[in-house]
Amino acid sequence: MLLLQRAAVSGLRNSRFDRLIVPKLHPHVCFTSDPSHLQSPKPHFSNGSTASGYWAVAGALLGVGAVLAYGNHREKAAEDSLPVYTKAEVKRHRSLETRVWVTLGHEVFDVTDFVAIHPGGPSKLLLAAGGPLEPFWALYAAHNQPHVRELLAEYKIGELSPDEERSSDQVCTDPYASDPPRHPALQINSQKPFNAEPPLELLGESYITPNPLFFTRNHLPVPTIDPATYHLQVEGPPGGQTLSLSLDDLRRFPKHQVTVTLQCAGNRRSEMAQVKSVKGLNWGAGAISTAQWGGARLRDVLIQAGHSPSGSEAHVCFEGLDSDPTGTAYGASIPLARAMDPEGDVLLAYEMNGQPLPPDHGFPLRVVVPGVVGARQVKWLGKVSISPEESPSHWQRRDYKGFCPSVDWDKVDFDSAPAIQELPVQSVITEPREGQTIEPGEVTVKGYAWSGGGRAIIRVDVSLDGGLTWQEAKLEGEAQAPRRAWAWRLWQLTAPVPTDWKELNIICKAVDDGYNVQPDTVAPIWNLRGVLTNSWHRVHVQVAP
Amino acid sequence: MLLLQRAAVSGLRNSRFDRLIVPKLHPHVCFTSDPSHLQSPKPHFSNGSTASGYWAVAGALLGVGAVLAYGNHREKAAEDSLPVYTKAEVKRHRSLETRVWVTLGHEVFDVTDFVAIHPGGPSKLLLAAGGPLEPFWALYAAHNQPHVRELLAEYKIGELSPDEERSSDQVCTDPYASDPPRHPALQINSQKPFNAEPPLELLGESYITPNPLFFTRNHLPVPTIDPATYHLQVEGPPGGQTLSLSLDDLRRFPKHQVTVTLQCAGNRRSEMAQVKSVKGLNWGAGAISTAQWGGARLRDVLIQAGHSPSGSEAHVCFEGLDSDPTGTAYGASIPLARAMDPEGDVLLAYEMNGQPLPPDHGFPLRVVVPGVVGARQVKWLGKVSISPEESPSHWQRRDYKGFCPSVDWDKVDFDSAPAIQELPVQSVITEPREGQTIEPGEVTVKGYAWSGGGRAIIRVDVSLDGGLTWQEAKLEGEAQAPRRAWAWRLWQLTAPVPTDWKELNIICKAVDDGYNVQPDTVAPIWNLRGVLTNSWHRVHVQVAP
Repeated sequence: MLLLQRAAVSGLRNSRFDRLIVPKLHPHVCFTSDPSHLQSPKPHFSNGSTASGYWAVAGALLGVGAVLAYGNHREKAAEDSLPVYTKAEVKRHRSLETRVWVTLGHEVFDVTDFVAIHPGGPSKLLLAAGGPLEPFWALYAAHNQPHVRELLAEYKIGELSPDEERSSDQVCTDPYASDPPRHPALQINSQKPFNAEPPLELLGESYITPNPLFFTRNHLPVPTIDPATYHLQVEGPPGGQTLSLSLDDLRRFPKHQVTVTLQCAGNRRSEMAQVKSVKGLNWGAGAISTAQWGGARLRDVLIQAGHSPSGSEAHVCFEGLDSDPTGTAYGASIPLARAMDPEGDVLLAYEMNGQPLPPDHGFPLRVVVPGVVGARQVKWLGKVSISPEESPSHWQRRDYKGFCPSVDWDKVDFDSAPAIQELPVQSVITEPREGQTIEPGEVTVKGYAWSGGGRAIIRVDVSLDGGLTWQEAKLEGEAQAPRRAWAWRLWQLTAPVPTDWKELNIICKAVDDGYNVQPDTVAPIWNLRGVLTNSWHRVHVQVAP
Repeated sequence: MLLLQRAAVSGLRNSRFDRLIVPKLHPHVCFTSDPSHLQSPKPHFSNGSTASGYWAVAGALLGVGAVLAYGNHREKAAEDSLPVYTKAEVKRHRSLETRVWVTLGHEVFDVTDFVAIHPGGPSKLLLAAGGPLEPFWALYAAHNQPHVRELLAEYKIGELSPDEERSSDQVCTDPYASDPPRHPALQINSQKPFNAEPPLELLGESYITPNPLFFTRNHLPVPTIDPATYHLQVEGPPGGQTLSLSLDDLRRFPKHQVTVTLQCAGNRRSEMAQVKSVKGLNWGAGAISTAQWGGARLRDVLIQAGHSPSGSEAHVCFEGLDSDPTGTAYGASIPLARAMDPEGDVLLAYEMNGQPLPPDHGFPLRVVVPGVVGARQVKWLGKVSISPEESPSHWQRRDYKGFCPSVDWDKVDFDSAPAIQELPVQSVITEPREGQTIEPGEVTVKGYAWSGGGRAIIRVDVSLDGGLTWQEAKLEGEAQAPRRAWAWRLWQLTAPVPTDWKELNIICKAVDDGYNVQPDTVAPIWNLRGVLTNSWHRVHVQVAP
């Protein structure tokens, strides 16, 4: 399999296709857009496993089938003499009104007339509108079949301009210049630092979120880290030594794999902002994702560093290698008891869904704290220490806390509220989407549900009539171990729509195994930072006549 | 102190007063209303510590000061020739409309004109209306002062009829005939089995609920247990022995004292029943109380019986010694992991607020499971065993579970929902009371807040305007240890009342350290058994002009 991927990528050298879709795998792999490098790519790897990780990532992003198929297509396209478009021109065709154009390799297609009959649903095809299909086909492998390519060929309208090259002139003073490429389906809330979420249609599609779609919450530029020289510093107890652990050292600890849902405290902030403005990124309901993380248990590493597994009340402080121009690094802390709990499953993770961590998710090492807010799961981890106090970091002490709705910036006392650790029960409707028109007869409602602290989701109630009546949704997937329900449950309900209903006010609300429930409305949980939005999720749709 | 109490009780022998207020301390102390027994009380104790416990309880209930004062008063009253009333006649005077009568010893007082100026508030004095003052004065020791007795003497209107004797004829076929006497302030939801809650004015008064006021939730008659012969059966692991532990054996384990709030799953059911009828006792908001429990750790006893502290997924099953006519005992179970967690603080408790357990609360031994619903904290504990399955008890498998509001008795599947263990965040306004008229100017709102699973209360928000605006209440008492916040927080807020407001719609809602919140309304959490009511608590009051 590895050989096949290597061969597939090699076969693409010198084609324009390379420059469009070969990701600049940053920061651990660096090569420029200079074609001479592509002739003989020598990524700056320093150990074999990371190199094979690179090829695996490249393979996944490219979609092996699509790559192999490309060769045939290119020959066919070359025979035609169709108009030539720039990428900017393609990008202007992103809706049914402006027509829907997509590219595959250097070919341009107008798939407007195919949108309505797209087997995966119109909304999913529209996510690719105005840009390349490859990143989507890489995730949804069903596309990599001859009949799909034949079908697509019918919609071909032109070629991409051969003059277009990715600029190799980078503004080197831009601290974000080394940020990695991202998947075009991500909905960007902030480019610098990069913050983006997957569209709900894709998020609700799979229990494990594909790495390229996993929501990204960066506070600072993505640091460039050489895995060969990387070392994690782990302070020992007072009077003790500081451990300096290479990636190989970390891999020698017993490897644990845990499937964990991460959620940003700001998930769904845009709903809270409708009540009254808040400070923060305008997240939709996609600032949550699920992956299988692999790494060493933090507990094992701390014990190795000389710490007692049953210590006093203290905190484990994490420092990232991402930093602002003053050199201040991102930081956070969790209670030591959580780190030391053998059932807490707190990881120093070097793998995400079987791959090395992508740059946006903390390459080469991040903390994963199951059941806890994303903000504590420090990426690009540089240093671990134990302190009687919480991390002094701004993000621990002056951010990521909840307050009474009456508290505004003129009178907030950040010391009066505890730093968010466990998050409350949450659920969201991923399908249908707000404002959609659904077919009469019956409706299928899908979504996700999750709760913090390892509390399992035991039920999701769905209402089609604005909360007057409720039906129980079907939870998908397996129940998780008691007290360690770290991952979400996807759910769905198919229900008849009464013939005289013109619209549905769909609501979902989840219950966890502590019988915690979501609040009905968002205004009473409003807080100045717009965190912790977990009121009932509501979607209003029309019913086609 | 013990001698003083003993002397005080002795000094009352042969008075009618005895027959009114000496509690029939059942089941471990039995004597009848035959005065000859009182001449020389020989309660059937079989060990010294229970005997001293008896005297301590008697002293507490009587109020030592009140007892000593009684002698003087009796002589004075004997000189008067006032009307004689029966207890039934006194009982008819329980409101301002019918006038407010109370008794102290054999004297009858009409305190109607004192109600409005009662320093502790009118509502608290009204709790004693129509009956004896002693049970209240015993709890609120400030009354045992000469000036209070002098003040009361001014309201004397008569004597209790000397012909009244408590009937010594008990219907022996009544399984509830041996139930103990209860405090008259308890609001009774069911007499047989006995289920009662304290009035909110008293509940919100003290962090530790006095034993006689602690809410009582019995499923069956109170069993009569001889502490001398009592033994707890603790099954060992497969192939092992069964431990049989006397109370002395249990006292030899390290003694742990933990302050724990217990809440019935049905607390506030009466609010849920207003949405649509439910099955269950019509609890107000007083099915919750707090005590300091003392006993052996269940973990220690299980390890002594041969169980591993880090076992597989299993359940600890408890059987009570209370049983129905078929011999079926009350039973319940908790996960073994909770019992074995050194931080779980699960107790086999033989003490409640420094006293032996009262009969209604499980004498001589009960389970106390901090952070968990009352139903699992089996009283009159007879047997402990470990099982791969939950307790087969009706109350574990076919009761105390939550469901979607659409599930009614015709289609409920009890196997589809997990047994309630941890309870969700809760808060209640104990003052002012629904329908009360408050003075203009400012209002003081008081209440309690608690959450399950050791999650600390971090904030209580109060609204005076039906939820439009919120203010943060002041939490009283000390913060508790992280992850072990087993007891409630009392809270209060004093806020100005705008001069043009004629009424207040007061609401409270609490937040726990997992940032769980209460739902806005009760209808969407309605369930057929009427459990888990934790929506915002609401009180409507008028503002006096």
